[in-house]
Amino acid sequence: MENELAIGIDIGGTKIAAGLVDAEGRVVEEVRRATPGHDARAVERTVAALVAELGAQAPGAAVGVGAAGWMDLSGSTVLFSPHLAWRNEPLRARLEEMVGRRVLLCNDADAAGWAEYRYGAAAGESHAVVLTLGTGIGGAMVTDGVLQRGRFGVAGEFGHQTLVHEGHRCACGNRGCWEQYASGNALGREGRGLLAAGSPVAHALRDAAGGNADAVTGELVTRLAASGDAACRDLLVDAGHWLGIGIANLAAVLDPGIVVIGGGLGSAAPLLIDTAADTYRRTLSGRSYRPFARVVRAALGPAAGLIGAADLARRAPAED
Amino acid sequence: MENELAIGIDIGGTKIAAGLVDAEGRVVEEVRRATPGHDARAVERTVAALVAELGAQAPGAAVGVGAAGWMDLSGSTVLFSPHLAWRNEPLRARLEEMVGRRVLLCNDADAAGWAEYRYGAAAGESHAVVLTLGTGIGGAMVTDGVLQRGRFGVAGEFGHQTLVHEGHRCACGNRGCWEQYASGNALGREGRGLLAAGSPVAHALRDAAGGNADAVTGELVTRLAASGDAACRDLLVDAGHWLGIGIANLAAVLDPGIVVIGGGLGSAAPLLIDTAADTYRRTLSGRSYRPFARVVRAALGPAAGLIGAADLARRAPAED
Repeated sequence: MENELAIGIDIGGTKIAAGLVDAEGRVVEEVRRATPGHDARAVERTVAALVAELGAQAPGAAVGVGAAGWMDLSGSTVLFSPHLAWRNEPLRARLEEMVGRRVLLCNDADAAGWAEYRYGAAAGESHAVVLTLGTGIGGAMVTDGVLQRGRFGVAGEFGHQTLVHEGHRCACGNRGCWEQYASGNALGREGRGLLAAGSPVAHALRDAAGGNADAVTGELVTRLAASGDAACRDLLVDAGHWLGIGIANLAAVLDPGIVVIGGGLGSAAPLLIDTAADTYRRTLSGRSYRPFARVVRAALGPAAGLIGAADLARRAPAED
Repeated sequence: MENELAIGIDIGGTKIAAGLVDAEGRVVEEVRRATPGHDARAVERTVAALVAELGAQAPGAAVGVGAAGWMDLSGSTVLFSPHLAWRNEPLRARLEEMVGRRVLLCNDADAAGWAEYRYGAAAGESHAVVLTLGTGIGGAMVTDGVLQRGRFGVAGEFGHQTLVHEGHRCACGNRGCWEQYASGNALGREGRGLLAAGSPVAHALRDAAGGNADAVTGELVTRLAASGDAACRDLLVDAGHWLGIGIANLAAVLDPGIVVIGGGLGSAAPLLIDTAADTYRRTLSGRSYRPFARVVRAALGPAAGLIGAADLARRAPAED
């Protein structure tokens, strides 16, 4: 089955990307649609339409669907999704009925991490951690060629490590989670905080936001930092520092050989990654008595999610 | 080889325990010696004498030696040991020469965790985390029957997760490590703090310590708590709370099916473990949308380390 084409779909907050992917991880064809808001049924219909469109060229192709959220171990049920109203939803069966072919559900960060392991920056590594940095922090672990999903399918939620006791509130129910300090949302919050404080160092950010703190996003901060604005560069360095502390935490637990950083923010902000790598080396528990993992940028870009979803579907046992 | 006896040795801070262990994990014979201080050569001679003594009854037995510290992946070299002057030490070759048989080096918490997986509280579990609670926090992970040691052999150092930004200093080089809040050392520090503050709630602890704050240890706090002293019970509850927060952190990363808590402190303080289990359930990221791991006490007691070391040695490939 390894030679077959597979269809990979990555459901994001703003767009749904779908691709026909060959066994070498090449995207033979790609189609995108806007995500139809928070309407789960509309999202499902869009997925089915994309499968029909791409599937015309690959009648037997398996379908992998990656989305933010928790999928059960068998890839059949969405336990929880932050953006859509999927709660203990037997989504696989419904999609299979809609598209008339085999479907696998997977976590979007697991899919992207698997793709980086199979075809990207973590290829050939025995112990890889892959972070997908966007509005939050997604995570995946691949150990000896196996995507580690834990006992219930929910492993790799690295962004919800507590790093700061009684820190910023997180939607997961806790406080002080890593992704409250090292993510696009964190950059946006800190940028808005600078404007709200009337800080003179944030003049460029204030201008770019039209004087409206609510218009400040992580993307805006990242863009201004890339153009050289000092205040926004400082915010990226702060976030990169937290990113490195969290990577050191993961290394205490997992001792990986490589940490790959991808996602929209990861690919847009080399300063963030360089800072994270420095802080990781400064913060690794027992440093100087143990080897360091390499901390590197992802190789596959925004198609990683659909490439990984396609490959996971291709490799899934046919019977389940 | 599975039916053979093996020799397991557990080098602790105060005693060295050695046992002859059968393939069902039973300790057929056990011998103990005081640990000869911090003299690495004297420790090695004691290990050799114990192997000679037990080995007379089992000529071909493999030898597993567990100690606090980091062993390389092959079980040949001690990268670092906190109590003894082993630094990048090819200890395995030296011990093999001294004892005339095959030796495997392993981390003491890995050995204890493996024993709980093979014969104890985690038997039959696909995703197990085992904590060894003593002066610090030792950790082990077993996934699908494999002891996970990471890329360089240093995985499972759970006690050195950062939980508190800019928190208590740790010997690992960082601040705010988990084991600074949920360990015997943490209990001792907090007990000494109560005495140093002249706190009237600590009257029983002050009496038991003969009025000398320096005489307060984690063991003393645990003993007074067991006898019902309210102030020491509060300290155990505080430590148990931190223990639960750290377990929730591990669950965000690993999603285990079971968390086993052993070690000297773990077995002496059910209040600590009950509190940890409650806090874990209150702190798990995304609780109510995912299953909980079971949080349980270890089954094997203080011999877990030598039992696990023996079994790991028995199962090691003969050629390396």
